[in-house]
This record gives sequence, C-alpha cells and structure tokens, in this order.
Amino acid sequence: MPRPLAPLASPDDTEAQFYEALQQGDIDKLMAVWADDEDVVCIHPGGPRLVGLSAIRAQFAALFAHGSIQAQPERVRRMHAHDSAVHSVIEQVRVMTEDGPRSVLVVATNVYVKTALGWRMVCHHASPGSPHEPTEAGEAPTTLH
Amino acid sequence: MPRPLAPLASPDDTEAQFYEALQQGDIDKLMAVWADDEDVVCIHPGGPRLVGLSAIRAQFAALFAHGSIQAQPERVRRMHAHDSAVHSVIEQVRVMTEDGPRSVLVVATNVYVKTALGWRMVCHHASPGSPHEPTEAGEAPTTLH
Repeated sequence: MPRPLAPLASPDDTEAQFYEALQQGDIDKLMAVWADDEDVVCIHPGGPRLVGLSAIRAQFAALFAHGSIQAQPERVRRMHAHDSAVHSVIEQVRVMTEDGPRSVLVVATNVYVKTALGWRMVCHHASPGSPHEPTEAGEAPTTLH
Repeated sequence: MPRPLAPLASPDDTEAQFYEALQQGDIDKLMAVWADDEDVVCIHPGGPRLVGLSAIRAQFAALFAHGSIQAQPERVRRMHAHDSAVHSVIEQVRVMTEDGPRSVLVVATNVYVKTALGWRMVCHHASPGSPHEPTEAGEAPTTLH
C-alpha cells in the first residue's frame, strides 16, 4: 500500500487527508489514514458496523465505484488527550436527488490515535444529522489533562 | 453533584456505570461518568449533536421523564491507548411498540479518557443499527502501541 503523502503529524492533518481522499475517491489515500489494527471501526450513515481494514476498504471501494464522496467537514469540536483525539464534525454531503443536487447533514465522530507512524484514524462513526443541527459557541480545542 | 459510586478505575467500569444509569433512569449516576469538559459530545439515535454537560443532562432528563432506557451493550470492540479508550458496542434496546415490547439494535461509539478522577466518558455517539448487524470474530482488546 502506498505510504501517506503527508506525515500525518497531527489529528487535523489526518482528518484533512481523510476528507480529501473521500472527495477524490482515492482508496489508497483513504486507507493510508487508518491505523494498522484489526479492531478499527467504521460506520456509514444507516450502515452496519464494519470492523477491520479489509471490511472498511471493501465498503469504501464499493462506494467509490459510484463516484467520489463530496463530504465537507464543518464545525469541528476537538478533544485532545496525550495520545488520542476525538473530533466531532458536521459533514455537509452533496448528493444527487431526482430534483438535482442538494446537501444533507451527517454527524461524524472521528477518533485518532498517535502511533509510531503518525496520527491514525481508529474510528469513523457517521450517522444522519438532524435537518437543523443546533449551533454552539466556541470551536477551540481543549486539553483534558 | 454526587460523586460516582464506583472509582471508574477502567473504561469497562465507566461503561458499566453508564449503562446501569440508563437502565435505572438515574440522572446523577449517569452524569457522574462524564468528563468535566465543555466539549463532551452526545448523539442519540436520530438526534442532533449535543455539546457540553448542560445540554447532555437536559436531554437525558427529558428521556428519563418517559422512563428508564433498557439498553444492553453487547459485542464490545475495545481499542485502548495509554490514556484513552474507544469502545464500539451494539446495544439491544427494549422499546414498547403498538405490537408490544421488542428489541431494536443501536450502534454506539463510546470514548473514554483517563483523568485525575478516573476514566471518564467524553463521547457517546449512538445511531440506529442495521436489522442484521454482521458478526465478527474476536472480542479481545488490542493495544495500539
């Protein structure tokens, strides 16, 4: 598998590469952000829990067969610990409907862990958002301890 | 706020107290598992993203006004780092329908962080599961590094 293009030096770097890979439909770039661990977990909106790199790769490959995924992360809430980070994002996902293109909201939890190979994703849990996600003040990262 | 009854000495302890509190409809016990952080995140199935302890407490209190929540965690997948843990669980949730009680599946991602006050929950993301969640082999925890 190709090495990641970026060094994945921070959770933000890794998250940026994840969404770039979705938008480009680039399966190798996408898989390069994941930790090499058999228990990594991915849940697509409305989909079953996928465990392990093989299952995750197969599902993304199936999705990319229909085109790239125009998901734009917004309103990121960050919680950083020493060797892990949890990002909660609202994704604006552009989808094609009978009435033309429109955006739907998806709520995603992305968890990153610091490894010898940089910050890697260990969990992506995405589910349909409410039509009107409430807005909250403050987007600054916090350190728990 | 009352102190937690248990020392929350491990992510499993904290998770056990979380689900006990749901099953007992005990709001103080439930809130005692959360980290004291303004950016903690909770997402109920189909609901909006809730950020911060006040919003999370208000929503659970509203749910408990209708009774406790009979959610039973199963098939837990654990990923542990030094000071954080991600648990992916399939919840069997007992709900009342016009045809009587039945169980629905919910997929939940629970993230815990080690603090001076023990392991605390920083994220609970729950979304409707597929009717037939695939089964996977292996439930042992892994250490990423």
